[in-house]
Amino acid sequence: MLDLATRVYNHNFRIDPIIRSLLDTDFYKLLMAQTIFRRHRDLPVTFGIKNRSPAIRIADEIDEGELRAQLDHARSLRLTRGEATWLRGNSFYGKRQMFASEFTDWLEGFRLPPYELEKRDGQYVLTFHGPWIETTLWEVPALAILNELRSRATLNGMGKFELQVLYARAMTRVWEKIERLKRLPDLSIADFGTRRRHGFLWQDWCVQAMQEGLGGAFLGTSNCLIAQRREVEAVGTNAHELPMVYSALANDDAALAKAPYEVLADWQQDYEGNLLVALPDTYGTTGFLADAPDWLTAWTGIRIDSKDPIEGGEEAIRFWESRGSDPREKLAIFSDGLDIADIERIHAHFHGRLRIGYGWGTLLTNDFRRFMPDKRLDPISIVCKVIEADGRPTVKISDNPSKAQGPAAEVERYKRVFGVGEQAAQPVLV
Amino acid sequence: MLDLATRVYNHNFRIDPIIRSLLDTDFYKLLMAQTIFRRHRDLPVTFGIKNRSPAIRIADEIDEGELRAQLDHARSLRLTRGEATWLRGNSFYGKRQMFASEFTDWLEGFRLPPYELEKRDGQYVLTFHGPWIETTLWEVPALAILNELRSRATLNGMGKFELQVLYARAMTRVWEKIERLKRLPDLSIADFGTRRRHGFLWQDWCVQAMQEGLGGAFLGTSNCLIAQRREVEAVGTNAHELPMVYSALANDDAALAKAPYEVLADWQQDYEGNLLVALPDTYGTTGFLADAPDWLTAWTGIRIDSKDPIEGGEEAIRFWESRGSDPREKLAIFSDGLDIADIERIHAHFHGRLRIGYGWGTLLTNDFRRFMPDKRLDPISIVCKVIEADGRPTVKISDNPSKAQGPAAEVERYKRVFGVGEQAAQPVLV
Repeated sequence: MLDLATRVYNHNFRIDPIIRSLLDTDFYKLLMAQTIFRRHRDLPVTFGIKNRSPAIRIADEIDEGELRAQLDHARSLRLTRGEATWLRGNSFYGKRQMFASEFTDWLEGFRLPPYELEKRDGQYVLTFHGPWIETTLWEVPALAILNELRSRATLNGMGKFELQVLYARAMTRVWEKIERLKRLPDLSIADFGTRRRHGFLWQDWCVQAMQEGLGGAFLGTSNCLIAQRREVEAVGTNAHELPMVYSALANDDAALAKAPYEVLADWQQDYEGNLLVALPDTYGTTGFLADAPDWLTAWTGIRIDSKDPIEGGEEAIRFWESRGSDPREKLAIFSDGLDIADIERIHAHFHGRLRIGYGWGTLLTNDFRRFMPDKRLDPISIVCKVIEADGRPTVKISDNPSKAQGPAAEVERYKRVFGVGEQAAQPVLV
Repeated sequence: MLDLATRVYNHNFRIDPIIRSLLDTDFYKLLMAQTIFRRHRDLPVTFGIKNRSPAIRIADEIDEGELRAQLDHARSLRLTRGEATWLRGNSFYGKRQMFASEFTDWLEGFRLPPYELEKRDGQYVLTFHGPWIETTLWEVPALAILNELRSRATLNGMGKFELQVLYARAMTRVWEKIERLKRLPDLSIADFGTRRRHGFLWQDWCVQAMQEGLGGAFLGTSNCLIAQRREVEAVGTNAHELPMVYSALANDDAALAKAPYEVLADWQQDYEGNLLVALPDTYGTTGFLADAPDWLTAWTGIRIDSKDPIEGGEEAIRFWESRGSDPREKLAIFSDGLDIADIERIHAHFHGRLRIGYGWGTLLTNDFRRFMPDKRLDPISIVCKVIEADGRPTVKISDNPSKAQGPAAEVERYKRVFGVGEQAAQPVLV
């Protein structure tokens, strides 16, 4: 039977919106937002898109009018009553009332701020100026919109069965990865794939497949909307933007050297337990751990991001051992461009020596590689980073020079202050 | 929006019927039925199921109550007005009014006759006794019911995503075959996969995928219901039951030797053009062609079934050449357990030397091989054959002794009458 009402209602859609909820974002953005809200809410910052795969001319692939329509639609969204209720009433990481009522009250009134968009050399220059608490919330929806518009542009014009088989192949690929994951003892893995996903519905499918396929070994998703709808855990840690802004605010080298630890000091005022996972690589992991205060040893774990995962894990073990902690009680979260073979390799290497968690992102939610002959469905490395804070440029160095960001002179100063030596560049896939 | 009416209506289903229309059968059954209707409609015959994969204990896999419910439901069906209209108004093989009004009038009043069912040694003994015109129409629905019930029994209890990925894998497999078929020049291929299909909806999917993927190289489907709904050609030839019954009716060896040609003489009174495709292997292709009357040379082609396809095609070419015909104007239809590699091999061998058609059956509509570790979704070789006509046993020899059927003494007599020598057995997959 035809559902007449649905058919007629569907005639009213002006666009097919990519972002349909302010909860369609990563959980760690909300955790960071609360920390920002308490301390730096009005600080003026600038976020900007950067395509680290410049050979891909996104502005030739995606229509500017469609991009504006999607960004404008995202700006029309407000937290719904049910969404606010979920944030207030749900328990996160086993804790109730993770978010203070001042913050959720503010979030209920929030809309995404204006954006600036222009085309340059086949790329979109998309920037967000304004208070940190507002602009920070653009990162994930802006990236998700760009990535999904790129998928849609590629899929446009394909036949019905060609499309169905494309998704059949993608489903098979994800499921075969899940079948390999099932064999890993004591697995704990989460979906971190919101920002560079193929599309919302596809991420939602991947999460459900992980739920069914992995059961308790699937920890949850970073996507708040999917976590709410599928009744799984919302998970996340924290990101480079915190030390990048704190460091930009430092007035001299001595303050700069302390800035990354100040982030963590603030963070542990706000959160506890499994949320006490440090991200040590913003200005080089080795120096960060060497100079880390003793209280960091009490934290639950470390996220290993831009460094080779085996090397990064070994370094973490050495760090905990040198501080008298048992690494087997510590958590290492691996999260940089992981695919199934990386996860297997890391697991074989570290299982039994550490508590291990995986944040599986782009190659869970956007692995359409080789399905189109011209790579047009391959994921690209596109980021949305804070580039300026209070009028000063931000700097990121990380453990992989391919991911460095900031004016050259500032990068050199940071390297000196943080004692960053020679680094081996590694390719950035996603 | 929820379609309340659909949800509530669905509560009324007692079973999920496998056969929902009398048109859900192979087109050649209707062609043969019309020939039977005109000449032998009341001849008492017996059809029986034979599982040529006896290691598969179907009666342990399929519940008897469910089997009876499905067979009973098929018996409740009548041709609908629109279905009768399609038979009357559609053109088949370019010809209007393929079916005489006496036949379609009769078919409108037809219901499938009673069946007899018992279990023996892990198999179902399912037989149909009665007038040839009625019992012949059980073959395809009975097989489709047994095969789909077997699929359902295996899929029962699987998770939602496990199921989705199973179908994703099957879709990918079919599509990859279609992509290989696209590369074959002058391809002409049809779906012959009704009887041993995984399920009706799956066959319907396969036909649509062939439509989209192959365009004009997809000739059509043997399934009348799908041909009607998807507006593609209904295609088919004729089957062993005609010469088997005609031969059983022969009163002596001389009459027996003529029987297979009498079938064709009757057939060409009823049909013309591309329907004049002879099936020469019932009692051995070599002898059949050697003794064939000259008028058979004027026929459009030959279906190559139980013989090795390369050998069978070469034999057909020699036959036409020996009778002064140009094989490039003749049609060879290959149809025995074909998979993509067979089709490619046959095409590479014969393209340019013959007009070629492929009747692609089980390995189009039921290739779920290796998707389950215990082969429970692999297709089996199950047939429904006429075993008795007018109180006498029927005999089939074919070019592959693994497919022979009938009492040993009768088989020996037929071999003598038709001059069948040594035959090499080939495995029967489907």
